[in-house]
Amino acid sequence: MKFSNGARGGTHAYPVEDDMIDITTASGQTDRNVKNHHHEEDDNSTHYSSTFGGIHETADIPGIGQYEDFHTIDWQRDIARDRMRHRYIIKKKQDSVWSLIQGAHDAWSGWLCVLLVGLCTGVVAGVIDIGASWMTDLKFGICPQAFWLNKEQCCWSSEETTFDTGKQAFWLNKEQCCWSSEETTFDTGNCSQWRTWSEVLGQSRTGAGAYVISYLFYIMCALLFAALSASLVRMFAPYACGSGIPEIKTILSGFIIRGYLGKWTLIIKSVGLILSVSAGLSLGKEGPMVHIACCIGNISYLFPKYGRNEAKKREILSAAAAAGVSVAFGAPIGGVLFSLEEVSYYFPLKTLWRSFFCALIAAFILRYINPFGNEHSVLFYVEYNKPWIFFELIPFIGLGIIGGVIATIFIKANLKWCRYRKYSKLGQYPVTEVLLVTVITALIAYPNPYTRMNTSELIYLLFSQCGISNADDLCDYNRNFTDANSAIEWAPAGPGVYRAIWLLILALILKLIMTIFTFGMKVPCGLFIPSLCLGAIAGRIVGIAMEQLAYNYPKNWLFSGECSTGYDCITPGLYAMVGAAAVLGGVTRMTVSLVVIMFELTGGVRYIVPLMAAAMASKWVGDALGRQGIYDAHIALNGYPFLDSKDEFAHTSLAADVMQPKRNESLAVITQDSMTVDDIEALLKETEHKGYPVVVSHESQYLVGFVLRREINLAIANARRTVDGICGQSLVIFTNSNPPQTLGPPHLKLKKILDMAPITITDQTPMETVVDMFRKLGLRQTLVTHNGRLLGVITKKDVLRHVKQLDNEDPNSVLFN
Amino acid sequence: MKFSNGARGGTHAYPVEDDMIDITTASGQTDRNVKNHHHEEDDNSTHYSSTFGGIHETADIPGIGQYEDFHTIDWQRDIARDRMRHRYIIKKKQDSVWSLIQGAHDAWSGWLCVLLVGLCTGVVAGVIDIGASWMTDLKFGICPQAFWLNKEQCCWSSEETTFDTGKQAFWLNKEQCCWSSEETTFDTGNCSQWRTWSEVLGQSRTGAGAYVISYLFYIMCALLFAALSASLVRMFAPYACGSGIPEIKTILSGFIIRGYLGKWTLIIKSVGLILSVSAGLSLGKEGPMVHIACCIGNISYLFPKYGRNEAKKREILSAAAAAGVSVAFGAPIGGVLFSLEEVSYYFPLKTLWRSFFCALIAAFILRYINPFGNEHSVLFYVEYNKPWIFFELIPFIGLGIIGGVIATIFIKANLKWCRYRKYSKLGQYPVTEVLLVTVITALIAYPNPYTRMNTSELIYLLFSQCGISNADDLCDYNRNFTDANSAIEWAPAGPGVYRAIWLLILALILKLIMTIFTFGMKVPCGLFIPSLCLGAIAGRIVGIAMEQLAYNYPKNWLFSGECSTGYDCITPGLYAMVGAAAVLGGVTRMTVSLVVIMFELTGGVRYIVPLMAAAMASKWVGDALGRQGIYDAHIALNGYPFLDSKDEFAHTSLAADVMQPKRNESLAVITQDSMTVDDIEALLKETEHKGYPVVVSHESQYLVGFVLRREINLAIANARRTVDGICGQSLVIFTNSNPPQTLGPPHLKLKKILDMAPITITDQTPMETVVDMFRKLGLRQTLVTHNGRLLGVITKKDVLRHVKQLDNEDPNSVLFN
Repeated sequence: MKFSNGARGGTHAYPVEDDMIDITTASGQTDRNVKNHHHEEDDNSTHYSSTFGGIHETADIPGIGQYEDFHTIDWQRDIARDRMRHRYIIKKKQDSVWSLIQGAHDAWSGWLCVLLVGLCTGVVAGVIDIGASWMTDLKFGICPQAFWLNKEQCCWSSEETTFDTGKQAFWLNKEQCCWSSEETTFDTGNCSQWRTWSEVLGQSRTGAGAYVISYLFYIMCALLFAALSASLVRMFAPYACGSGIPEIKTILSGFIIRGYLGKWTLIIKSVGLILSVSAGLSLGKEGPMVHIACCIGNISYLFPKYGRNEAKKREILSAAAAAGVSVAFGAPIGGVLFSLEEVSYYFPLKTLWRSFFCALIAAFILRYINPFGNEHSVLFYVEYNKPWIFFELIPFIGLGIIGGVIATIFIKANLKWCRYRKYSKLGQYPVTEVLLVTVITALIAYPNPYTRMNTSELIYLLFSQCGISNADDLCDYNRNFTDANSAIEWAPAGPGVYRAIWLLILALILKLIMTIFTFGMKVPCGLFIPSLCLGAIAGRIVGIAMEQLAYNYPKNWLFSGECSTGYDCITPGLYAMVGAAAVLGGVTRMTVSLVVIMFELTGGVRYIVPLMAAAMASKWVGDALGRQGIYDAHIALNGYPFLDSKDEFAHTSLAADVMQPKRNESLAVITQDSMTVDDIEALLKETEHKGYPVVVSHESQYLVGFVLRREINLAIANARRTVDGICGQSLVIFTNSNPPQTLGPPHLKLKKILDMAPITITDQTPMETVVDMFRKLGLRQTLVTHNGRLLGVITKKDVLRHVKQLDNEDPNSVLFN
Repeated sequence: MKFSNGARGGTHAYPVEDDMIDITTASGQTDRNVKNHHHEEDDNSTHYSSTFGGIHETADIPGIGQYEDFHTIDWQRDIARDRMRHRYIIKKKQDSVWSLIQGAHDAWSGWLCVLLVGLCTGVVAGVIDIGASWMTDLKFGICPQAFWLNKEQCCWSSEETTFDTGKQAFWLNKEQCCWSSEETTFDTGNCSQWRTWSEVLGQSRTGAGAYVISYLFYIMCALLFAALSASLVRMFAPYACGSGIPEIKTILSGFIIRGYLGKWTLIIKSVGLILSVSAGLSLGKEGPMVHIACCIGNISYLFPKYGRNEAKKREILSAAAAAGVSVAFGAPIGGVLFSLEEVSYYFPLKTLWRSFFCALIAAFILRYINPFGNEHSVLFYVEYNKPWIFFELIPFIGLGIIGGVIATIFIKANLKWCRYRKYSKLGQYPVTEVLLVTVITALIAYPNPYTRMNTSELIYLLFSQCGISNADDLCDYNRNFTDANSAIEWAPAGPGVYRAIWLLILALILKLIMTIFTFGMKVPCGLFIPSLCLGAIAGRIVGIAMEQLAYNYPKNWLFSGECSTGYDCITPGLYAMVGAAAVLGGVTRMTVSLVVIMFELTGGVRYIVPLMAAAMASKWVGDALGRQGIYDAHIALNGYPFLDSKDEFAHTSLAADVMQPKRNESLAVITQDSMTVDDIEALLKETEHKGYPVVVSHESQYLVGFVLRREINLAIANARRTVDGICGQSLVIFTNSNPPQTLGPPHLKLKKILDMAPITITDQTPMETVVDMFRKLGLRQTLVTHNGRLLGVITKKDVLRHVKQLDNEDPNSVLFN
């Protein structure tokens, strides 16, 4: 296809335009009138790969315009390529009906693509949710009549309920509807259809023997699942480990990691995630869901507009990341803001709208699949019947501070451990490490009911109010319920509450320690759920303390205003939610998206202020104690070339301080018309740069353009293969003008691969401005000049190294190319 | 204060650094080692305004770094200035406790400022809401016992309700609580405390005489209010008219309009808004609320960090715009997204978090003031008890298309009328125009109950379900209510419904026509509410049609699945809401923010998909029929220099096509060391550019830097005043090196005002890239070079003109400077 060659051969400087000039003007001068004239001409597609007035053409060389693995993309160039493609399609549209259809398909392919991504993400998330819930219960027992049901479904499937004609939720089928109408929690284990492993083995349901058998089965299952997960990851898709968010951030900032979003990663990460969640490890499936969604976003290769253009592909990936959070929490708006705030780098407003669409479709599909079997599509749906009181802002801010401290402890310890893993022998035995952590987690977790249960269930329990149906120790208050709808009476805590508090404190410590060791292991693992859980425990404890304080000192001036009515004035569940937001905020440094996600979880605007206060306090405490969030810390640890768009560059250096070459070294340049093929090949051998500036001559180094090493190599190889007479002595010409042909071999004209519009700066430009340009324009490199003369080059790598150096870190820790 | 001089004198090229070089190196060469050495040195504040090795200093010149009215700001430069100021404060911090406090104040001033803005916005919005509601009722009658109460309050204040100890909403005082517990609407007029004007004049409440008196009073009050509003605007604050959003967009994109956000504009706009809303004109107070909030945002002048830096000030203004929408609709998240999507130009992520805080505070304060007297802080709180059905997506998309068409008609007709007003004699009689429109509106509106009532009330009525308490004609169904909580029975429409439909169709036509003439008049007027109203009417009609269709053909395959249960399966109120979103979306081209605002209005995630479908259809139809939203159209009409960040630049021109000077003209440049003061002053007189490139010499035009006309003028005037011997023959030197002093007058050294890091591009750079750079880096101008040699300059004005020209519009319609 002629066009795609032209497009791929397209450099910044528009080969289309260059061709036209070459054909029409004898002089090599850029003639503006001729060019303007041509704008109006019908320059049809033959121009795209025409053999022009030069010595031979270079546009058909395959591979030009692509990137290699671990390379940085040049956004400006990719976006220019896309616009050129777009213009070509617009022009072609009038030619035939088929072109018109192609044009329409192209115009709609963005929406079609995000629709597909949304649909698939919803389905995959549903499968993962169902699978994880079934396998988690498999640790405890089995449903003999239908082994594919989890405990909840097993118990429900036996119950007989009249099918009330879908009044509550028409989109449920009969079975689901019956489930959704049930209200009680089944974790007390009094369901006859469900057999625990001890029962299966003929033991009774209770007693020491049964306990030991259950304990053993629990550990065995956990080990089995964890081993499977770790081996799958190790054998088939090493990129499937971890949460993936640091890598997604790096990829979205314009870096190429081949295979990181491939289909094997998708499959193994999904399966491994189900397994590792079921193994009872202290990890969540929300972070990896973002990675999985981005893998699904990679189906954009079906649409050439996105598949062949790395910059455009990132628009789809941003939308996919939003869909990932959307299905993880059932929070589409929160997902879009998460993508905007945390993950994405380049987020034009058009992408905002598409991301929202994608997130919404994904959430809608997941709700249709309905893996949680209830009407609400969100992970923890809670409703409180009391507003918060103004003085409660003090404990809420206190919780924010506690959350910030817990988060900092977690980040620092986790980083230490990850660094140890990276540089010690431990890193060579990932499966062993996983098994060890699994055994320890299972051993400690089983005796404590709060760590034994699924983490999401625990969070839900901590968030919820002590209503009439809640039989947990946590709700052991000395009160009598008369009616489910009446206001909750104020009551002193019973002994069960104090027992629960001790167990929760133990659970908090255990979870904190285990999560530190778990996050970063070679299985799919996220930390949203563990963070939320840590915060929820801390919050619930503070909440109960406040509640009892208010009960015991109702005459105190703080409480006397609002708490003297005999009704419960403080909701410990709300404290749990605020605490959860605080720790998650401290760990990830999310702000708006965090509050919006929590707001969508509860579905009410009422508690935004407390959530915001806690998130703010936690972020400030976190920022004061340690600069980076967990994702940025892991990016730094792994040395990914990520130029943070949030960090301010606070130093006073100038471009001259950063550019290569340093003083006393000479700059590797190519001259526009005086070097032979041999000269250039020697230069390429001597130096290792990714690109070379082209100057007028060695004596007067005025900048003409910039060529990439990869493209020179391809062009020379292609010319040697296809053009007679090109040899080492051929002059390489980057201008339009033709130097007089001497007796020697023919000239090699390479103007096509010359980028005639490189971004340049002066040597006096402050580095702040340079960093700003790199971020906002998505540059790969910029050329430094002084009074028009070329002085040097600054690449993204140079900038990253400079930043590291100024921060007193090792500049060589930046992994690049 | 030494520092502030230094800061204001600071150009891009860091005078601090320049000073140091001048002091330490004898040669004028930029010595990198020396510079690096200095980075580590404790360069204390005396450097900031030291007299350096040049001939005399220019840093103390007042006014440098400021902008004139109707100028474009240079973001890069302002942000660089702010960073320098920041570094200075960080450095000073260690000096004394006072500096430490100053430093802390500086660090917190951003938060303090948005807190203040949020508080004030909430209060002002509360005052406006209360005032508008009181004065609107004043058109109909008065509360004799307490004239300051509006009708609703007047009726409530007489009712006796037992004060139920604040269970529902503790933050209400007794009176408010009683109000909020009432459920019935009082617009049937059966409240004995409230006197209509006919009653005040001794007439009965009903009858022809009473009707005529009420009609007359209605028109008189409307005229009075409108006349007051128009005269106030005309006399005291001409900038207070219109919605203000096009101007706010322009200001936020980096343009200076002095007084547009001043205190007089704030006061007059608030008062005028109350008056013009009360006059019953077809306008809303939501758009102007954004302008009012931005005026409040101007209190950032209390904080030098923001007040003295135009780029930083825009961060606060973005947050204020979010607060404006937040209080207008009670939708803080929607407000932030509106600011991000629609209004703001430069929206770093730090601003996102602050905007959210600001919007939340404003909403919280407004809720505390509670102007609507109910528990919900949103404008139209509705709750539906049925989900939507999948096939309803078809009518929803249909509504989207209708909305897009209505919006396009409105935009085109309004633009035509505004253009006519602008270029005809009509524009000279703004008050007369307002009075005329008011009389016509009042005359036609009064007889129709749906146009007579407050537009917000009408929208609320159209959105709501036909519950047990709703006595309007719209709800005249043949059904009996037994219990307020039971499901709504399915019923055929009664005659009242058909009557209501005819009146609504009339209202739709009237509102559409009157809004076309109203929007753009010289009173404060917004179009959110009229647009919502148009859409709500269309939607309700479609909804009733669907409902009756389903009732009459329940066996049809479309309806048979869901509508055969005997309960109402279609909610006309939901259709009204979807229609409202469609028209508003079509008029403003908002997308995500629109859906989020509507979502916050209803408080449920359930209806996002219908809203999104309609908003999408409406936007696409609108884009297909007419390119621009109403705000962009008004920006173009008024010729504001606004470079839209959403429009794609789709042409193939190069920088060489756009730059000034054109072929055969010569470029006005200043040489670095060979022009005298007289030469420069002659150049300034001959040409009118805002800035001049500095080159090596006229013969070799290699670029050295860029100076602004304003700063040369200031520097020369200052030098003549303060330095002996400076005269017309003095050489002006922009370099560090000192040319040998001849016998003539002393040299004038102006390196301080030279920007040594101007942004440059090559002449082959495609204009797409150039436009992208202007947008993302916030440039004022860029210099065009070829092989290092200066060719010309491209300013924002040139870009805007070029875009207009390519779009076949008049390039001279751009108002600039």
